[in-house]
Amino acid sequence: MLYIIGLGLGDEKDITLKGLEAVKKCEKVYIEAYTSLLSFGISSDGLSNLEKLYGKPVTVADREMVEEKADSILSQACNSDVAFLVVGDPFGATTHTDLVVRAKQIGVDIKVVHNASVMNAIGVCGLQLYRYGETISIPFFTETWRPDSFYGKIKRNRDLGLHTLCLLDIKVKEPSLESLCRGKKIYEPPRFMSIGTAIEQLLEVEQKLSESAYSEDTVCVGFARLGSDDQIIVAGTMKKLQTLDFGDPLHCLVIVGETHDVEEEMLGFYSIKE
Amino acid sequence: MLYIIGLGLGDEKDITLKGLEAVKKCEKVYIEAYTSLLSFGISSDGLSNLEKLYGKPVTVADREMVEEKADSILSQACNSDVAFLVVGDPFGATTHTDLVVRAKQIGVDIKVVHNASVMNAIGVCGLQLYRYGETISIPFFTETWRPDSFYGKIKRNRDLGLHTLCLLDIKVKEPSLESLCRGKKIYEPPRFMSIGTAIEQLLEVEQKLSESAYSEDTVCVGFARLGSDDQIIVAGTMKKLQTLDFGDPLHCLVIVGETHDVEEEMLGFYSIKE
Repeated sequence: MLYIIGLGLGDEKDITLKGLEAVKKCEKVYIEAYTSLLSFGISSDGLSNLEKLYGKPVTVADREMVEEKADSILSQACNSDVAFLVVGDPFGATTHTDLVVRAKQIGVDIKVVHNASVMNAIGVCGLQLYRYGETISIPFFTETWRPDSFYGKIKRNRDLGLHTLCLLDIKVKEPSLESLCRGKKIYEPPRFMSIGTAIEQLLEVEQKLSESAYSEDTVCVGFARLGSDDQIIVAGTMKKLQTLDFGDPLHCLVIVGETHDVEEEMLGFYSIKE
Repeated sequence: MLYIIGLGLGDEKDITLKGLEAVKKCEKVYIEAYTSLLSFGISSDGLSNLEKLYGKPVTVADREMVEEKADSILSQACNSDVAFLVVGDPFGATTHTDLVVRAKQIGVDIKVVHNASVMNAIGVCGLQLYRYGETISIPFFTETWRPDSFYGKIKRNRDLGLHTLCLLDIKVKEPSLESLCRGKKIYEPPRFMSIGTAIEQLLEVEQKLSESAYSEDTVCVGFARLGSDDQIIVAGTMKKLQTLDFGDPLHCLVIVGETHDVEEEMLGFYSIKE
């Protein structure tokens, strides 16, 4: 059996009782490294906190390992109980559908243990989840690659009065350009997009395409470390939020659409006091 | 302190460790009855399972009580730790924003413990969460009230190739018409919309408005008891799904938009075999 278990958003105690019971009976426990490196402070105290709670070792599986060694993980799951831990919900913002498809193809039984993900936890700011349009992702711009396909989606959402969740880029274990040239694997340090960078890129694209999808006066909600004890949630214009230091990652951003009274009242609690 | 704690979707073991720790230190524990009546089988074994796990009594708070006695709940939370338990995530499909607004107005500290909700758990069928458009709700039609405002939203989502989550009506503790006339509170038995009824209503509206938003050949995914051990997930045309018995509530429905390869492959695993 392959258990795919969501860990939630905060720390090791955000696992469910059901998830913990499953981990405890598994012979082998993997954790995806894509975002967990950060959220659970892995390679500092995070991993050992998980291991302490579970009473067994946890193997960090980066994307490469999941892709290259999926067969070995799955063959273990044919004959024994294996846990694959995922930050947030197994099918939240980052998906693990590929691993599930392969497992189903070779007949490995799968059990999913759900948990909170950024897709529902943003509800805490008071904007109703059913009033969101399509979610967009904002990738890090480079000198030569400045994609703007998210712009049309934001415009559509805003024309309909809907809110837009913007997921911000995460770069973990990216091979450095130099190492690619030399054929050796050396990785760039991890990078996580801040709300400031996201807004800078958003405004650059608005300036370029000029369809008035939004402006520096558009109200947004910035979230840092959503679901953690030290989460920060601030509502304000793009211009205002851009000047704030939200601290450590992960960050995400909601571009506010039309609001109802209760939504407005809730946003008031998170607004920057002038 | 007012703890607003998500219970997740399945049974009492879907609470997180963080949520359970909070419940254990609270002097008073309320559970919202709106959906929990069902999911946690309250007034049969469900509530006592919760009480057994928590080691303390749990008070069922129906909508009326939350509205009428919010002040008393909040004043308890001024001087002691109070837990308010919510099925799914506190800010998931059903929101409790009103209670939060009132609490913030009078300065009661709030702590939210997130959990899975239908809004992210539907990811299990393999359709990517970021490819959903606006969520819609389908209310029970009556003789004289057959609202169709959801139709335009579905059409917009489908024109953009997006998936649509349909939340199906729940009627819990609705005063009966007769009792309203007599000024006495007698309640109708609870009703939960089935996938069959939802599709029947959807097709009726398509026939009436005839803008080809969808048809009986449109592929959908039906979910029953999502997140429970006996969940059912079936992909197929509206026509096919309408003939199936999904069993006990809660049901929900996803109208599928344009699909990518991996999405298609995942749906294949849930498709009705002819």
